[in-house]
Amino acid sequence: MMANSYELYYWPTIQGRGEFVRLALEEAGAAYVDVARVAERHREFMDMVAGGDGARPPFAPPVLKAGDLVIAQSANILAFLAPRHLLVQDDEESRLWAHQLQLTLADLVDEVHETHHPIAASLYHDEQKQEALRRSAHFRTERMAKYLGYFERVLTRNPRGGGHLVGDAVSYVDLSLFQLVAGLRYAFPKAMARVEEDTPLISRLAEEVARRPRIAAYLASDRRLAFNENGLFRHYPELDG
Amino acid sequence: MMANSYELYYWPTIQGRGEFVRLALEEAGAAYVDVARVAERHREFMDMVAGGDGARPPFAPPVLKAGDLVIAQSANILAFLAPRHLLVQDDEESRLWAHQLQLTLADLVDEVHETHHPIAASLYHDEQKQEALRRSAHFRTERMAKYLGYFERVLTRNPRGGGHLVGDAVSYVDLSLFQLVAGLRYAFPKAMARVEEDTPLISRLAEEVARRPRIAAYLASDRRLAFNENGLFRHYPELDG
Repeated sequence: MMANSYELYYWPTIQGRGEFVRLALEEAGAAYVDVARVAERHREFMDMVAGGDGARPPFAPPVLKAGDLVIAQSANILAFLAPRHLLVQDDEESRLWAHQLQLTLADLVDEVHETHHPIAASLYHDEQKQEALRRSAHFRTERMAKYLGYFERVLTRNPRGGGHLVGDAVSYVDLSLFQLVAGLRYAFPKAMARVEEDTPLISRLAEEVARRPRIAAYLASDRRLAFNENGLFRHYPELDG
Repeated sequence: MMANSYELYYWPTIQGRGEFVRLALEEAGAAYVDVARVAERHREFMDMVAGGDGARPPFAPPVLKAGDLVIAQSANILAFLAPRHLLVQDDEESRLWAHQLQLTLADLVDEVHETHHPIAASLYHDEQKQEALRRSAHFRTERMAKYLGYFERVLTRNPRGGGHLVGDAVSYVDLSLFQLVAGLRYAFPKAMARVEEDTPLISRLAEEVARRPRIAAYLASDRRLAFNENGLFRHYPELDG
């Protein structure tokens, strides 16, 4: 049975990987509680971070509760939500393709995290700055253009036109691409400006997502956290260039 | 419509991420062609690596062709194959849970790759050896035990008993866990021996998967490639300990 209201469990002070889920819930106009941002529920959130005591423990946030279901892994959560909220065309081929794109986008997101933490997530960034410099240089000059060039090609080849990644309507993957663009512009403004010279369809799609009424209202609200240097996309000027 | 025969596009000299798909196809007894290992089709394989010219280009192998469908991202391929070949219980909750576990396992696999390539996939391992030493030390002492402890906990908590990750029958996630264990034993024999002291259910499940008739036949065949230092799981003695 469908839940009338979702519960999202994610870190309360960063956008992080939870933001891809938040954007989908906002675009859907779905009722949800961002549990960790409710003061008296912080302990409950920390229990979930530790995996809870259920038969199907999550490894890490984000976690979505939908009725009796407890679902983790952001791409898995999105694949669950999308058909329920018309955030993807509901045929198997479209769902597989959207999920494939989302997983590819998630791979890039992982690589973004590695730029500031190339040695260990358990160390502070300051303890791995030399390695971060070296890794970021490769990320900026090789990986960013390779991945974004790929998504630009997907838009170019879409037989339904270059306005969306999947079919001819907005899907959750478009929302995630918007978030990726916003994050890369924040973390690597110089490098991203260069890459975007060659990805006009991505830039246009990101602007269109930002103008969608529910997304625009969300971005203007205090539910949208600011980017910061505890999150996934961090602006360390020495890592850009 | 179901394809009568699948085509798998993956690098022909390594197990890599393609092996998770190969194991599922073998357990299913599915007819498939490992395209890159057919000499006269190597060019066709390289075209696929480059993304092909279709409307839905893959970013990278593995890629599975099933009739008209062209599917990439190993976890996505497995989620597609599993319900068709009874490699997962066919209810939504089981499918979501299996996929969640597979994505978590894939995160660990990504971290394994980072141990020998912490700076850039485009550089040789020799060009990032110092960073690899440092990253591997954290991987061995923190990440391996954390992830494998998690999967052990999943087995312990399974209300249907600790013999399988999902429900009471073998699923594709069990096959992937077997491959993970085999790879970690190859790459980090010393560290893995220590971790396995605390994960008896994982060790037992890995042995049981290896004894399944179709898997045993596959492992004994020349279709199973050997681990080597071009793949995902590499044995560099200085990175173990």
